[in-house]
Amino acid sequence: MKAHTEYLTFQTKKHREYINITDRVAAALTASGIAEGMVLVSAMHITAGVWVNDAEDGLIADIDEWLEHLAPFKKDYRHHRTGEDNGDSHLKSLLVHHQVIVPVTRGKLDLGPWQQVYYAEFDGQRPKRLVIKVMGE
Amino acid sequence: MKAHTEYLTFQTKKHREYINITDRVAAALTASGIAEGMVLVSAMHITAGVWVNDAEDGLIADIDEWLEHLAPFKKDYRHHRTGEDNGDSHLKSLLVHHQVIVPVTRGKLDLGPWQQVYYAEFDGQRPKRLVIKVMGE
Amino acid sequence: MKAHTEYLTFQTKKHREYINITDRVAAALTASGIAEGMVLVSAMHITAGVWVNDAEDGLIADIDEWLEHLAPFKKDYRHHRTGEDNGDSHLKSLLVHHQVIVPVTRGKLDLGPWQQVYYAEFDGQRPKRLVIKVMGE
Repeated sequence: MKAHTEYLTFQTKKHREYINITDRVAAALTASGIAEGMVLVSAMHITAGVWVNDAEDGLIADIDEWLEHLAPFKKDYRHHRTGEDNGDSHLKSLLVHHQVIVPVTRGKLDLGPWQQVYYAEFDGQRPKRLVIKVMGE
Repeated sequence: MKAHTEYLTFQTKKHREYINITDRVAAALTASGIAEGMVLVSAMHITAGVWVNDAEDGLIADIDEWLEHLAPFKKDYRHHRTGEDNGDSHLKSLLVHHQVIVPVTRGKLDLGPWQQVYYAEFDGQRPKRLVIKVMGE
Repeated sequence: MKAHTEYLTFQTKKHREYINITDRVAAALTASGIAEGMVLVSAMHITAGVWVNDAEDGLIADIDEWLEHLAPFKKDYRHHRTGEDNGDSHLKSLLVHHQVIVPVTRGKLDLGPWQQVYYAEFDGQRPKRLVIKVMGE
């Protein structure tokens, strides 16, 4: 089994931001030379997520509103006694999960026609890392 | 590392439907000849999910009701300005995640006694694909 | 590809409990001798979860309260007609997902500085199993 590892760093302008990283995942796959296997795409922070879904701006805004509804910013999370103010960002990360696996078949990301890989930043405006690990033959 | 890839297509009768695919995942494993590794089971659409949980009809109905409560059908999702009407299906997919990994040990799916693999269709009545990728030795 | 498999068993004192298992995942990696690859950490029960997030007690209490809010204990789940009373535990498991993949790079868990692996018990006080599967070279 071969493995190829890359790290991306994001510094978003907004507190919450959603970034289509499909092309960067595909580039890591190309660099790996792997034809059959998978790519793990995983946030390295606990206030960010990774998902596979549609690249449609209206939907992205719907998702953001929905996440704020289910895991709202609040002042009074216990976590804030540590001096943090990002309790909601942790909950949002848990809700959408922090990683996906993209299968690799015949040298290509084996995604459906509308599947795009997104990095979901829930507490940005500072450097945040993500790991892309390609594994296979 | 060996890899074996299969695609399933579902065309459900209902808009939302939950299908136990454990036997089909096990059949793909048998066809692969792999003894140690894992099986990735991943929806190829952005309005479907895959989970591992109980094969109990009452629970399945509970899950369906719960998902409709947390990610309800609504007319006014921004996504619907594209002509779609399935905003809730995308949110339900994000909530339950679109994929699982089943470990493979000594040639068998290494699942607990009640763990069953389900395909969760949130916008059916048309052909939808899923990829099963077995990887290992 | 090499594979190394371990099983952990938990018997929690409380009905819901959250256990940091990062050291045990790291120990399984060391035992495997694998330098490049990944570790699958997956609950073998359908009323438990596994996540990667912060080891901060206030946050853990926030997560517990939030999960109880989104997937509450109720008497009247249909699942309870089977004699069970843990419908909420299944929903909590679906919400946080039952597994994570930890990438392995140069013989170490390739986690960010605050990322810790947790076993989340939603229906404890009885023996529950989890599988750790290390795969790679």
